[in-house]
Amino acid sequence: MSHESDKKLKKLGQDILKQLKNNENPAIEIPIRSLKNVKFDNETGLISMGEEKLKRQFFNISHAKKFMQTLLVAKVARELVKEKATVSIRDLFYTLKIPIPGTKENVFDYQNESDPIIEDVEVALNILREEMNLRADKKGSMVGDLVIEDGGDKIDLRKQGTGGWSIPSKVEDDVIKFKETSAKFILFVEKSAVWERLNEDKVWKNLNCIMLTGKGQPSRAIRRLLHRMRNELNLPVIVFTDADPWGYYIHSVVKQGSINLAFLSQKVGVPDCKFVGLTTQDLKEFDISKNVALELTEQDKKRANELLKYPWFQKKEWQQEINHMLKSNLKLEQEALSNKGIRFVSNTYLPTKIRNKEFLP
Amino acid sequence: MSHESDKKLKKLGQDILKQLKNNENPAIEIPIRSLKNVKFDNETGLISMGEEKLKRQFFNISHAKKFMQTLLVAKVARELVKEKATVSIRDLFYTLKIPIPGTKENVFDYQNESDPIIEDVEVALNILREEMNLRADKKGSMVGDLVIEDGGDKIDLRKQGTGGWSIPSKVEDDVIKFKETSAKFILFVEKSAVWERLNEDKVWKNLNCIMLTGKGQPSRAIRRLLHRMRNELNLPVIVFTDADPWGYYIHSVVKQGSINLAFLSQKVGVPDCKFVGLTTQDLKEFDISKNVALELTEQDKKRANELLKYPWFQKKEWQQEINHMLKSNLKLEQEALSNKGIRFVSNTYLPTKIRNKEFLP
Repeated sequence: MSHESDKKLKKLGQDILKQLKNNENPAIEIPIRSLKNVKFDNETGLISMGEEKLKRQFFNISHAKKFMQTLLVAKVARELVKEKATVSIRDLFYTLKIPIPGTKENVFDYQNESDPIIEDVEVALNILREEMNLRADKKGSMVGDLVIEDGGDKIDLRKQGTGGWSIPSKVEDDVIKFKETSAKFILFVEKSAVWERLNEDKVWKNLNCIMLTGKGQPSRAIRRLLHRMRNELNLPVIVFTDADPWGYYIHSVVKQGSINLAFLSQKVGVPDCKFVGLTTQDLKEFDISKNVALELTEQDKKRANELLKYPWFQKKEWQQEINHMLKSNLKLEQEALSNKGIRFVSNTYLPTKIRNKEFLP
Repeated sequence: MSHESDKKLKKLGQDILKQLKNNENPAIEIPIRSLKNVKFDNETGLISMGEEKLKRQFFNISHAKKFMQTLLVAKVARELVKEKATVSIRDLFYTLKIPIPGTKENVFDYQNESDPIIEDVEVALNILREEMNLRADKKGSMVGDLVIEDGGDKIDLRKQGTGGWSIPSKVEDDVIKFKETSAKFILFVEKSAVWERLNEDKVWKNLNCIMLTGKGQPSRAIRRLLHRMRNELNLPVIVFTDADPWGYYIHSVVKQGSINLAFLSQKVGVPDCKFVGLTTQDLKEFDISKNVALELTEQDKKRANELLKYPWFQKKEWQQEINHMLKSNLKLEQEALSNKGIRFVSNTYLPTKIRNKEFLP
């Protein structure tokens, strides 16, 4: 993996050199990351980027500084890959918060300048920033029927107590390897407090699965981990969130990617993952007191109506669920299941829906 | 631990019963959690609560509902302790989002009603909500020279890879036990990205320590864990944050507790912990380019001036540092050290300051 990054980063430099030697205007081609260059690809089931590219040129007064920044980011990235050292995107920013020789300007003054350049390099070379040894904040935990290797240490996720393994912000296969599993599927849980409840009941043992949480919208690392486990372990992924537009959107991001990070979809998407709930239709099916459902806010309604229009929410099951939510004017949080008993989620709700394959696509 | 909670919760009920039998107005005495009942105790070095109490009475029209809520929270807590099951404070809210018989009102309608009642029970009985099997969100990771037992699983924190052990939201000694260590101290790191950098370099091995991060302001569980390790393992705690008023405050919260949660201080405070940095005086000592220091914002200055006045910031070293920061008008982030090289923090900064015991108190 890092070998491939090294090759691609090196080639970027060589290409520029070649252009210089040929007396060309040195340029880097960068696919455009804007909404109009993003499309939903029905065939792959992913939100993907289109074909539009920009040419960032050295001899162009409005490109020159960004051209330099791009090459410097690539230079630092290559050093990191060679050194086998990982730093945060904030570290990278500070590494390049240095004066441009002969001027009073810095290469970067703010991190919101360096972050987009990192993404430029990602799309230009089709490598993840994690493959260039750059990382952001870590979040999330994992337990279940899986033995991994992490940085040379063998970790048995069946013996990780109440806390679990803390998911690092970089989960590429040079560091994280999957060793052994007899799990039947992977369960992604939106809320860490719910995950802790499920882990206390050892639900992953009863259901024979691997169980992770991302604390709300999953990070890139968690999406990458789900993608890798889906493909390398050949296990289905099941998503468990609140019954509200934000929960549904978490599922859709895991499944087909997001508009903002469309360039990642191929490396992090899980187009065949399934949604186990909550749905507002569970209220009736599981005889849940309306007392613990919450009314939709104006923001919820607005977001629900946006979801209804996204091409990747056109499947009839989703149109049905979102319309049901709007009509009933109710949403339901994962924790609301506690009203039926502390262990209702572990002993009844999840086993029933998973056994009966009551999923939304 | 949970045995003690059970006893105290049971006694609360028995006391009420006794008052009823004696034809008294049933009442619960609750220490007052307001700023005017909070003081800095020079002897213990902790922010503690004063002696003021309120009497929550059943036969008092403005107390009756809260009286009922308090008893119901205690009732659910006792069931959790008996069942050896833990739920989140949001689960508890949903468990009690139920109608009051004979009325159209619910026991609780919003979680911001049930959370303060939980705190009332905590202070009234002097037990943590975690000891009543209630938890909030989990965050943070730990690695280093320590073997623990977590929920019956033995976990060797020297073999937890790049991710580490994910710290659960409840770390009481019925579940988390410390088994074996030859560490010399405990290092608490503000930012998870910095912790990942340090863990990649296996700094905890070189410095012979236990290393944890809380991702910013540490949670109750992390503070409790630090407190327990300080006392049960008899190891000093060293805090490593940004050089800014927010970093200094993180240290002060770990050390002497916070105003809002003063009632916790005795069970989570680490009054003899030390601050290793960053300080703004490091700029000169380690020849760090001013280029990577940031100017103080108006908010930073306001907060710094507040800190200067807190009784627990009166030590001359802190007055000196904060005044130095204000005078130089600069702050410094942990990641800024990367400007001196990726491994500067691991190989130079921390080893030098820790070896030379260059701490602020």
